[in-house]
Amino acid sequence: MLTAEQNQTLTRTGPGTPMGDVFRRYWMPALLSRELPRPDCPPVRVKLLGEDFVAFRDSSGRVGIVEPRCPHRGANLFFGRNEACGLRCAYHGWKFDAAGQCVDIPNVTPEVAQRLKHKATIRALKTAEAGEVVWAFFGEAGDAPPVPDFEYAAVPSSHRFVGKKLQQCNWAQACEGGLDTAHFSYLHAGINEGRKVGLHQVGRALSESDDGTVEPPRLKRLRWLIEDGAPRFTALSHAAGLLLCAARTADDEQLYWRMTQFLMPNHSLTPGNFPEDTALANTWVPIDDTSCWIFCYAWHPDRPIEDRERERLAGGSGIFAEVDDDFVPIRRRENDYLLDRDLQRTASFTGISGISEQDQAIADSQGPIADRTQELLCQTDLGVVRFRELMFRAVEDVRRGVTPLGAHDAGAYRVRSGDTVAAGDLDAEEVAQERFGDHWGRPLDAAISMSKEATPAPGTL
Amino acid sequence: MLTAEQNQTLTRTGPGTPMGDVFRRYWMPALLSRELPRPDCPPVRVKLLGEDFVAFRDSSGRVGIVEPRCPHRGANLFFGRNEACGLRCAYHGWKFDAAGQCVDIPNVTPEVAQRLKHKATIRALKTAEAGEVVWAFFGEAGDAPPVPDFEYAAVPSSHRFVGKKLQQCNWAQACEGGLDTAHFSYLHAGINEGRKVGLHQVGRALSESDDGTVEPPRLKRLRWLIEDGAPRFTALSHAAGLLLCAARTADDEQLYWRMTQFLMPNHSLTPGNFPEDTALANTWVPIDDTSCWIFCYAWHPDRPIEDRERERLAGGSGIFAEVDDDFVPIRRRENDYLLDRDLQRTASFTGISGISEQDQAIADSQGPIADRTQELLCQTDLGVVRFRELMFRAVEDVRRGVTPLGAHDAGAYRVRSGDTVAAGDLDAEEVAQERFGDHWGRPLDAAISMSKEATPAPGTL
Amino acid sequence: MLTAEQNQTLTRTGPGTPMGDVFRRYWMPALLSRELPRPDCPPVRVKLLGEDFVAFRDSSGRVGIVEPRCPHRGANLFFGRNEACGLRCAYHGWKFDAAGQCVDIPNVTPEVAQRLKHKATIRALKTAEAGEVVWAFFGEAGDAPPVPDFEYAAVPSSHRFVGKKLQQCNWAQACEGGLDTAHFSYLHAGINEGRKVGLHQVGRALSESDDGTVEPPRLKRLRWLIEDGAPRFTALSHAAGLLLCAARTADDEQLYWRMTQFLMPNHSLTPGNFPEDTALANTWVPIDDTSCWIFCYAWHPDRPIEDRERERLAGGSGIFAEVDDDFVPIRRRENDYLLDRDLQRTASFTGISGISEQDQAIADSQGPIADRTQELLCQTDLGVVRFRELMFRAVEDVRRGVTPLGAHDAGAYRVRSGDTVAAGDLDAEEVAQERFGDHWGRPLDAAISMSKEATPAPGTL
Repeated sequence: MLTAEQNQTLTRTGPGTPMGDVFRRYWMPALLSRELPRPDCPPVRVKLLGEDFVAFRDSSGRVGIVEPRCPHRGANLFFGRNEACGLRCAYHGWKFDAAGQCVDIPNVTPEVAQRLKHKATIRALKTAEAGEVVWAFFGEAGDAPPVPDFEYAAVPSSHRFVGKKLQQCNWAQACEGGLDTAHFSYLHAGINEGRKVGLHQVGRALSESDDGTVEPPRLKRLRWLIEDGAPRFTALSHAAGLLLCAARTADDEQLYWRMTQFLMPNHSLTPGNFPEDTALANTWVPIDDTSCWIFCYAWHPDRPIEDRERERLAGGSGIFAEVDDDFVPIRRRENDYLLDRDLQRTASFTGISGISEQDQAIADSQGPIADRTQELLCQTDLGVVRFRELMFRAVEDVRRGVTPLGAHDAGAYRVRSGDTVAAGDLDAEEVAQERFGDHWGRPLDAAISMSKEATPAPGTL
Repeated sequence: MLTAEQNQTLTRTGPGTPMGDVFRRYWMPALLSRELPRPDCPPVRVKLLGEDFVAFRDSSGRVGIVEPRCPHRGANLFFGRNEACGLRCAYHGWKFDAAGQCVDIPNVTPEVAQRLKHKATIRALKTAEAGEVVWAFFGEAGDAPPVPDFEYAAVPSSHRFVGKKLQQCNWAQACEGGLDTAHFSYLHAGINEGRKVGLHQVGRALSESDDGTVEPPRLKRLRWLIEDGAPRFTALSHAAGLLLCAARTADDEQLYWRMTQFLMPNHSLTPGNFPEDTALANTWVPIDDTSCWIFCYAWHPDRPIEDRERERLAGGSGIFAEVDDDFVPIRRRENDYLLDRDLQRTASFTGISGISEQDQAIADSQGPIADRTQELLCQTDLGVVRFRELMFRAVEDVRRGVTPLGAHDAGAYRVRSGDTVAAGDLDAEEVAQERFGDHWGRPLDAAISMSKEATPAPGTL
Repeated sequence: MLTAEQNQTLTRTGPGTPMGDVFRRYWMPALLSRELPRPDCPPVRVKLLGEDFVAFRDSSGRVGIVEPRCPHRGANLFFGRNEACGLRCAYHGWKFDAAGQCVDIPNVTPEVAQRLKHKATIRALKTAEAGEVVWAFFGEAGDAPPVPDFEYAAVPSSHRFVGKKLQQCNWAQACEGGLDTAHFSYLHAGINEGRKVGLHQVGRALSESDDGTVEPPRLKRLRWLIEDGAPRFTALSHAAGLLLCAARTADDEQLYWRMTQFLMPNHSLTPGNFPEDTALANTWVPIDDTSCWIFCYAWHPDRPIEDRERERLAGGSGIFAEVDDDFVPIRRRENDYLLDRDLQRTASFTGISGISEQDQAIADSQGPIADRTQELLCQTDLGVVRFRELMFRAVEDVRRGVTPLGAHDAGAYRVRSGDTVAAGDLDAEEVAQERFGDHWGRPLDAAISMSKEATPAPGTL
């Protein structure tokens, strides 16, 4: 539970806000590389952290993300021509390169143009491309650290699929949903004859093998998710964020562990994957305070993403929503996510089709900006609580001039998430060691850890 | 004419407003029973008096109207599952009964759940069903008086038809339209060769007999409505509101009386019916300050509503609008009520089809909240003036801790409205006595009455 | 560049604003005469200068533009009946004539009606019709000067075509676009093999003769427009505004001059026409501070507008947009003006079809109200700068009780604009003399003139 002021601090990321200052110390996914498919292709509008930009790919392939306002008379450069290594304003032909330099002023004499150009520089973000995503650094470009070294960006493109989707609420509540694997036992549950069962409509994506027969191990895990709806959470901190570990009772006195990564300030690697499975991750990038882009990444460290899986992801599956050409989900707030009450009665806990859409609906339902001044947090909200603590620490760090966690440590982002079944007497650190072993990119910094037995009293979180 | 402050007092009914406090002392129609057709049917959103709720019918048939916010993390219970005598949140499965008690918290240990449940009670309105309408008491549930004893709720369901429709303006101006039978001579008039005539398109509903021939008595009344456009109003006060009597010149030195009931704080029984006719009534329930639900009731004390009449009402006739599945009128503000200027020229005073839609258009046209600081009231506005006086008196009563008129007197609502033709020398009380006689549920309290000759000077009302 | 306060002064024209006071000293085009095609035709809503009105043509053909609120109970007179020389309120039949006098109150006794009528006068604008346009004077009707004597209004209707179109931004930036012929070299340019060429899609309207062959002189002018993108501006002031002259290099040491009229406070006669061509003009009338109607006039002093040209203008050509039945452009903000990026790459500088739509898009793109506190003005913005000076002078004049420029001088509006090719050593005044000669309605008052050589330093304008 937060004060109204804390809630405001957590959720506002516009220019000049404390959390906005934090976000401007980190690289942000700005758009998909495929939104700018070719040199000199059409410019696109980009709104992020409450600020408007125009993005374009110049003749050399370099991406510019610049303020949209021509300094001459304020026309919008979105309507400009992307030509010969620059974006030319449609009104009087003033031209700007990807770094924001004014390179041509054709409606005055050459002498006047020479004097005017240096006054006509426009703001340009520092940009980079990694993992088929265009990243932007919204702070002072001179201070930009290296781009975080995500594994999904390091694998060959054949091993990767990326996308994005619109979320019509504040970024933080959507991100909190990603750190809360407890809801999997409810929000994503199926219904059979009135009782919760393995997940509805995730069947095909998660539990079907290529020849159509069902693999028993996957069904087992779904059963454990349903049978134990009160997982025990442990949060392990490290150099870029948190490893959030949730243990559920499995068979034979074993525990089923789902381990989620939170990476500062707005990334998560999801649980749900065993070592042989495709890995998944998200970034929640604020558009403004009441909407965000959720970037979605799927990758496999060792093998290509097959065409069939790629098609499934592109059409909406797991964390990937079914979206239109503007990356707006087909099932969304305006149409109540095509909620089917008959389906809810007979086959799905929510009646909404799609894991992603179920997450989206419940986050939207918390309001444009969730009110955290009235909450009853419990043990399964540990990840949410630790996330908020890290975000507030980062605000304090930036305020004091200290580099916030992970911002200058690109290598700390080379981590993994995933599931495992382990002996019942191992603690979270031991399980993580066993699960990730030498697959784990860097040693855990276990400075803050909680025993899995510790269940904080509700309300004290 | 009101001051700006009085107009604000009259029209605002949100939490904490003076008129909101008045409304919260009375039972309110909240939704139609058929919107929750079966036990465990889908929950529906309800917004009334500026407050959001979720309504559901539990397994036992009991209706719950509860705040929509799950106290755990603020997800909206509209997306919940209505199952086994409770509404279960889609996020983590917390479950609430129709009284707002939290009856299950499955994502923590049973011991923690036990401690948490009592903190997790949510607000629930006291509810009742009468006349195929779900009523709610928005005040402290312990204080709820009996539900008002409307005749339409007392007759067998075969004798009754109920509906509702959206009005896109403040409740009070729409209600005032219902208390002003003078406008019938204009707003609802037909046009024939450039002159006002009997009502356009009400013909079928009001003046056609079952075999298709027209009954002369009904045509006569329409003629009187048109011929005398300046009816004389008398307001008789009683224990739940006002009987508003409007006299028009009829034939042979008789008067044609239309008598409307206003019942505190937002009900009206309409004039227009002779003893053998179906009776009609409305309630205007604020959704917020710029829209309201108008509940519509048709009933006959002595006989069933025939299928043919029932179909006509369901499709839009008289006070019933033609509405879509969400009870939004087909002809509405956004499409200018499908106003047909040719029709207006040749056949209808307004060019808008439907009595209800004509009323709706003119009320909307007064603005989202009518400005009553500039008015030129005249004698036919007497009902409007008396209505405002009663509403302000109720505000004062509630402020002083006094029960407002009718709030604890369910029996006072067993009254009737209707038309009659009477000798020209009878006054309103004598005519009401003659018209309602032993059909009148309780004696009139005639403490405040005005002679029908008294025509207050314009502007002094 | 303006201060924030100056920008507010320039752009706000609602009641009580300084610029609103200026506009209320001049006649304004309010609607097209054909929007009220017949006596007693349907009334129409008119919103201008932030104020709502209802316009109607009475039985005698006289146009009334009255406040929409019935003084009785505030119903909107738009829903009224236009009958027998007056507009009758749909609620209780109160009736008003075109001058705002209440002429009937039928719902009270004749005696009361007599007393009430004189209190029930509603505001009515003084109106006039000229050039198939209904003009309104928004100030005190008694002070109304004669309607400005535009040539387009003086020619026979066979020689004229008028229209209007919605612009979804503040009036002043759209008007400034009309005073800036420099943008013609960019915004309206065509593209051929990557280079700017003669204008895309203006070809048909501007450069095709009746038999389909292209006239070389017109192609020449298009070439000059493209080849010289830095025209030299001179502003000549006169009794109703400014003659703005822009010189471009032509062939054989001649100059190609485009001369635009700005007429206080919101009219422009466009350049682009040689003496044999159809003349064109615009008025920008604020609807509110973020939208305006642009009235469009085409006329020929000496010959009829042929059917073929008339059809072309009606369908959208040159300054005439392709509009729907409500005068809303088909290509507009909501659909990004159907911007075609392929077209932009291969054939059109903007990718937007239509001169009018290109102007519209770029003005919209400056924002709902352009921010003039950040600009880099240069020599081609001289017209914009002089326009702002005149507008601020008018604000000052009105503040001091002085009649603003042109407001009482109807004859000063009988001026012309147009193009010419002249010897390179003539200055703007000499060229204007040569171009307009005895066609020029009144002598130029050349009190303020700038030499065409003077190129003010950027930023000092």
